[in-house]
Amino acid sequence: MTGERLRTIGSAQPRRDGIGKVTGNARFAADVELPGMLHAKVLRSPHAHARVVRIDTSKAARLAGVHHVATRDDFAGMQPVYGWLIKDQPVLAIDKVRYVGDMIAAVAADDEATAYRALDLIDVDYELLPDLQSIEAALEADAPALFEEPPIGFVNTYGQGASAEKDPRKNVCYRFNYRTGDASVFGGCDHIFEDTFTFSRMQHYFLEPYVAVAQWQGDQVEVWSATQSPFLNRKELARVFQHPEEKITVNVLYVGGGYGAKTGCKTEPIAVLLARITARPVRLAFTMEEQLLTNTQHAAVLKLRTGVMNDGTLVARQSEILLNAGAYSDASPLVAEKAGYRIPGSYRWRHIDTQVDCVLTNQAPAGAFRGFGGTQAAWASESQIDMIARRLGIDPYALRMKNLKDLGEAFVPGESAIDSDLRLGLDLICERLDYQNRPKRRGHGIGLSVVLKDGGGVNKAAHAMVKATTNGGIIVSSATVELGQGAHTALTSMAAEVLNCEAGRVTFAAISTGSTPWEQGTFASSGTTIMGRAVVAAAAQLKEKVLAFAAEDLGCSPDQLILEDWTVRKGNEVIPLAPMIMKNFGGPGFEFTGTGYYKPRVPDDHSAPLETPVDFWEIGWGGAEVEVDQQTGQVRVLKLVVSSDFGRIVHHGACRGQDEGSAMMGLGQALFETVLYDGGRPANGTPLSYRVPLSTDLPGEFISISQEQGHGRGPFGTKGGGEGGILPVASAIANAIDDAVGVRITDLPITPEKVLAALDKQK
Amino acid sequence: MTGERLRTIGSAQPRRDGIGKVTGNARFAADVELPGMLHAKVLRSPHAHARVVRIDTSKAARLAGVHHVATRDDFAGMQPVYGWLIKDQPVLAIDKVRYVGDMIAAVAADDEATAYRALDLIDVDYELLPDLQSIEAALEADAPALFEEPPIGFVNTYGQGASAEKDPRKNVCYRFNYRTGDASVFGGCDHIFEDTFTFSRMQHYFLEPYVAVAQWQGDQVEVWSATQSPFLNRKELARVFQHPEEKITVNVLYVGGGYGAKTGCKTEPIAVLLARITARPVRLAFTMEEQLLTNTQHAAVLKLRTGVMNDGTLVARQSEILLNAGAYSDASPLVAEKAGYRIPGSYRWRHIDTQVDCVLTNQAPAGAFRGFGGTQAAWASESQIDMIARRLGIDPYALRMKNLKDLGEAFVPGESAIDSDLRLGLDLICERLDYQNRPKRRGHGIGLSVVLKDGGGVNKAAHAMVKATTNGGIIVSSATVELGQGAHTALTSMAAEVLNCEAGRVTFAAISTGSTPWEQGTFASSGTTIMGRAVVAAAAQLKEKVLAFAAEDLGCSPDQLILEDWTVRKGNEVIPLAPMIMKNFGGPGFEFTGTGYYKPRVPDDHSAPLETPVDFWEIGWGGAEVEVDQQTGQVRVLKLVVSSDFGRIVHHGACRGQDEGSAMMGLGQALFETVLYDGGRPANGTPLSYRVPLSTDLPGEFISISQEQGHGRGPFGTKGGGEGGILPVASAIANAIDDAVGVRITDLPITPEKVLAALDKQK
Repeated sequence: MTGERLRTIGSAQPRRDGIGKVTGNARFAADVELPGMLHAKVLRSPHAHARVVRIDTSKAARLAGVHHVATRDDFAGMQPVYGWLIKDQPVLAIDKVRYVGDMIAAVAADDEATAYRALDLIDVDYELLPDLQSIEAALEADAPALFEEPPIGFVNTYGQGASAEKDPRKNVCYRFNYRTGDASVFGGCDHIFEDTFTFSRMQHYFLEPYVAVAQWQGDQVEVWSATQSPFLNRKELARVFQHPEEKITVNVLYVGGGYGAKTGCKTEPIAVLLARITARPVRLAFTMEEQLLTNTQHAAVLKLRTGVMNDGTLVARQSEILLNAGAYSDASPLVAEKAGYRIPGSYRWRHIDTQVDCVLTNQAPAGAFRGFGGTQAAWASESQIDMIARRLGIDPYALRMKNLKDLGEAFVPGESAIDSDLRLGLDLICERLDYQNRPKRRGHGIGLSVVLKDGGGVNKAAHAMVKATTNGGIIVSSATVELGQGAHTALTSMAAEVLNCEAGRVTFAAISTGSTPWEQGTFASSGTTIMGRAVVAAAAQLKEKVLAFAAEDLGCSPDQLILEDWTVRKGNEVIPLAPMIMKNFGGPGFEFTGTGYYKPRVPDDHSAPLETPVDFWEIGWGGAEVEVDQQTGQVRVLKLVVSSDFGRIVHHGACRGQDEGSAMMGLGQALFETVLYDGGRPANGTPLSYRVPLSTDLPGEFISISQEQGHGRGPFGTKGGGEGGILPVASAIANAIDDAVGVRITDLPITPEKVLAALDKQK
Repeated sequence: MTGERLRTIGSAQPRRDGIGKVTGNARFAADVELPGMLHAKVLRSPHAHARVVRIDTSKAARLAGVHHVATRDDFAGMQPVYGWLIKDQPVLAIDKVRYVGDMIAAVAADDEATAYRALDLIDVDYELLPDLQSIEAALEADAPALFEEPPIGFVNTYGQGASAEKDPRKNVCYRFNYRTGDASVFGGCDHIFEDTFTFSRMQHYFLEPYVAVAQWQGDQVEVWSATQSPFLNRKELARVFQHPEEKITVNVLYVGGGYGAKTGCKTEPIAVLLARITARPVRLAFTMEEQLLTNTQHAAVLKLRTGVMNDGTLVARQSEILLNAGAYSDASPLVAEKAGYRIPGSYRWRHIDTQVDCVLTNQAPAGAFRGFGGTQAAWASESQIDMIARRLGIDPYALRMKNLKDLGEAFVPGESAIDSDLRLGLDLICERLDYQNRPKRRGHGIGLSVVLKDGGGVNKAAHAMVKATTNGGIIVSSATVELGQGAHTALTSMAAEVLNCEAGRVTFAAISTGSTPWEQGTFASSGTTIMGRAVVAAAAQLKEKVLAFAAEDLGCSPDQLILEDWTVRKGNEVIPLAPMIMKNFGGPGFEFTGTGYYKPRVPDDHSAPLETPVDFWEIGWGGAEVEVDQQTGQVRVLKLVVSSDFGRIVHHGACRGQDEGSAMMGLGQALFETVLYDGGRPANGTPLSYRVPLSTDLPGEFISISQEQGHGRGPFGTKGGGEGGILPVASAIANAIDDAVGVRITDLPITPEKVLAALDKQK
């Protein structure tokens, strides 16, 4: 199903970032070292909620080697708050601290050791306030308000069918509603099932810490940051410092994992602030402990009310989702929208009614995380589908097959068509699990899950430039960040394909907002499809220019020529381009340049519920075979099968890596990972105590199937990937446990204690 | 004559590089410091010509802190020679050293002091060879050959009327011939005058030394270099190291003066070689003494045979030029071509016959230097024109006015038209000198000079990108280097003019060959006219995109809209663009991008003598009023008037600075500067002993007139500038001395000794 044979797309080739990374030559923001560079450390709140009465930095400032101690007193001329939509998170605490770890002061010193010593010399007087450690507590009528004055608001509203309200309740920073169809269909349902699920928050736990180096010289600001979105970062910095965007340059090297968290402001504003004050370059790198205090996934409570017919036909779903946003809004509004939009899942409905509230608590802010609301939605949705099947006595596989959307069917009216055959993928999973012939014995079970998420982000637009040197070396210039996902391999492969050359001849230019063409950011699995289109367009324009040049030199028409490995073929003649270029341009040689741009058009009738139709649908199929130890509650995953549909695969290794890495995050989510608080303080806030999956936790058999169904609307039939793997795992495992022992766990992670308690109840 | 009033072009505004330079924030390659960076120093030959028998680096290599001592033994896999057309200069000496200062070995060490100590520990055995210290010596029949085997040759040949021969004689590395018209017209001349002139070599004497920092990681090479031509440098490095161009990135910060010398390889290959071997970043900065050993202007002997009529009509000129190329060809072939092409000067001829030989000697290599062959040509040509006038008893002003080409007249048949009124400019000079009423007394004289040079270089092609941020900040991305000439001010002003915004809103992106659009290099006064066209085209494309976007949003036609300060005016409505962009593109905002390209077309009939017609004509008008002390031979310049025609001025201060700086170089050339050799060793090779003009040498009155005749073919009627000022000064002063005391100095510089000797001879 993958269409014509291509030269580079799908071929075996080394990853672009591979050799650099295994040899240690790859450079990250953490490696940046500038002459005279100072090192910064931040003082963090030990209290979950407190008024900051007084900050005395005088002793710290007098310590030898300390250049400046920054506090809220340094904000003159700034708008010192940030956030994706709502600007509520201060660069450093202003009136209050709102979680343990909230930043109060920052020291720039000759070295980190001195900066740490200075932190100990800062005296802060707090007036303690009652704190809120759960969604429930935050929504109580007499709960204290995290923000006594509403923060600077900036709220997107979408088109027909969707609406957004700002701050509808105290401690709710954002509400998203989404409705389609007629609610009266609930009345005709044979059954209405109401179930509630809770979702625990994970950590991003990437290997490279948050880090930025900043320099402020004259009116020029330069930042090296481990960011997924250099232009978005530049925009925030421009606003925070009230400094023109064009005078701020953000440079991005390799980024060692982001999973959504490395978007927006993290270390950058403090590094820039200290650089401005000290007139020296300043480096701020967080430790792993600080990383765990900076941003997390959203914990959630999801209440589903689903109407079905006796024969298993799904009819209507109403859902209320509460997201634990932590102390600041960060990306919560967008996560809320996506969680709400994705909760109907992969099925055909006659009515959908969704409400999502982002609830502020005195915990670390929650933000973008692989799956972006889709994980929360999938956990509840695919658990409940399974529960319904079992309640109706229908095989969960059969119930899914009956209700899954067809290939080509619109997700909701006006939305783009589903671009994968969902049943085909589910059958692939079942085949590898030998689902139909599974042993039927207590303690052993198989669970399935099919999850669908809209891919590509909301605001899709990307520019790219592709250049060709005299000798046919190709340089792709694009702001898509290599996070380990293989984006640079994918984009250079696409350029090689269009220009019909060896993939090894294509290199990726350093990213700097000054000279790199604009794009919104590297997230939402958008690299291959959104930026891919821009790169392919740029390469195509370059190819056209090269052929026009050669045709003029040869006195023929461009369509008589075929470009191949920096020669033009004209009939049986093979004419090398380099000498032709030297002849025409002389000693300095030349570079051909092509530029490309992609932005989907808003449909003329504005019929899509979102501003732009979904670019592609990312599907996560999963199946788990488990054995449950009924004495201990221990769940052993005997086999885990996950699958994504990449439409067409650009690089097999990168796709497999994405799927399997993503599925392992799903396994952590299902069984182990959760950020624990002990009265406002993180209880497992160190990299050792925070429990990620170990190699010994790997399923007995771990299978990933990278499908190439061929329906992608991206270049060469591609679709974005990388988030699919995480989506089905937790629900598939919960469903398998139910299949094995007849107990339903609705609360993540699925620890032996919870399973044992459920088994005890069952007795 | 400057056409419509423009908003930015010609307006008073600070230079783009001004604040950074006066506050010390501007960064140069010398400021680059990388983690683990080593420092390099080179061992230089104490002999002018010798065979290198043996190099023993063992002691040096054992010195603590030394990482590597590179020699010819490190060249495996390389093509370790470079040069503009002829690749003859070795990265480090191979078989021989050919001048005092030739580089033999290079040490990379922890610091410069250690590197210097290591140099002392290198033992070299030389077999001395006879050396050639003048053009005459090098051309003698029994002179030793600098190259016993011909070097790797690469020779451009031009079109009709011009031819180039390779190595026609021993020690001649390049010959250029140029003929037009019929030689028989000499037969009809009333007089044929033969005169010979000698021209002494100057030093570039820029403030920032040659410096490069290189890093080789995996297959990625990164270089920070004080270079005028990042792409040309990349091309040479790619060839020398046999490494793909696209894997070499050359970054350029501000460059502290180049005057032609910072083109091609200087410090770069050694820095890259040591970086590859040591796997560490390596910095190589030359001292001022080393700068004086690296590259110079061309000394020359110019023999002119000029046929004229009794009434002063110029008929035919035959010239033989010998350029002292020094030990390696460097840019000599191109300088030869330009000297030869420019020797006819500003006058109408019926026949021109030119031959230029580049003669190798055992002195420092000569290369590109402000004026590029035009200074040598002007010295001879404008001196002889004056001599002819005096011999015929015609006023030198009148002879010039009679023979000067008209505005719009082709330089030679098929060449582009002269784009300045030469007579108008000469009259401006004469007016300021009160030429017609000058006192006629011995010891006091006035001399004139009108020089014309083709501008823009031979191979003209440039790409540029212009971006606009959400808030209307403009970023110009172009490889044109800011050398102090004001190029970034000119190019950003042009973008501001097209986009109708404050010049202060336009910034210039950092230059890096990976992401910056290609251009050939920053030389030949080409920035404003060649890159200017590309920038204007890019800005125009950007404007078009912005207006199309706004028109679509507003439901009108783009031609109903006027762009102004990042608003669109529609009738009386003024609609800001930023909110419109946020509405359409959402939170991350957007950047509009325009790209521009300029390459003149080769005329279809190939009638131009050069591959591409001359882009613009750079004119240098000059006049000097002198007083000659007949007792001492001392020449006092009472008044110096120079003028250029910029077509239309983009930035008055930058143009004036270029003209006056250039004229001061001309004053140095005329009276003081010359590189002296004492038996092969530089006799004034230190910055103190090499005599540049001092503030006390300034003319009593120093006037520069920046004309705006309005005939430029560059954007807004502009023409390139910056070289004009140097061209007429030496000949104007020599002509003034003749006018004052009736002696003719034909040998530069015009020292009191030479004047006194001539006066003595006159008695």
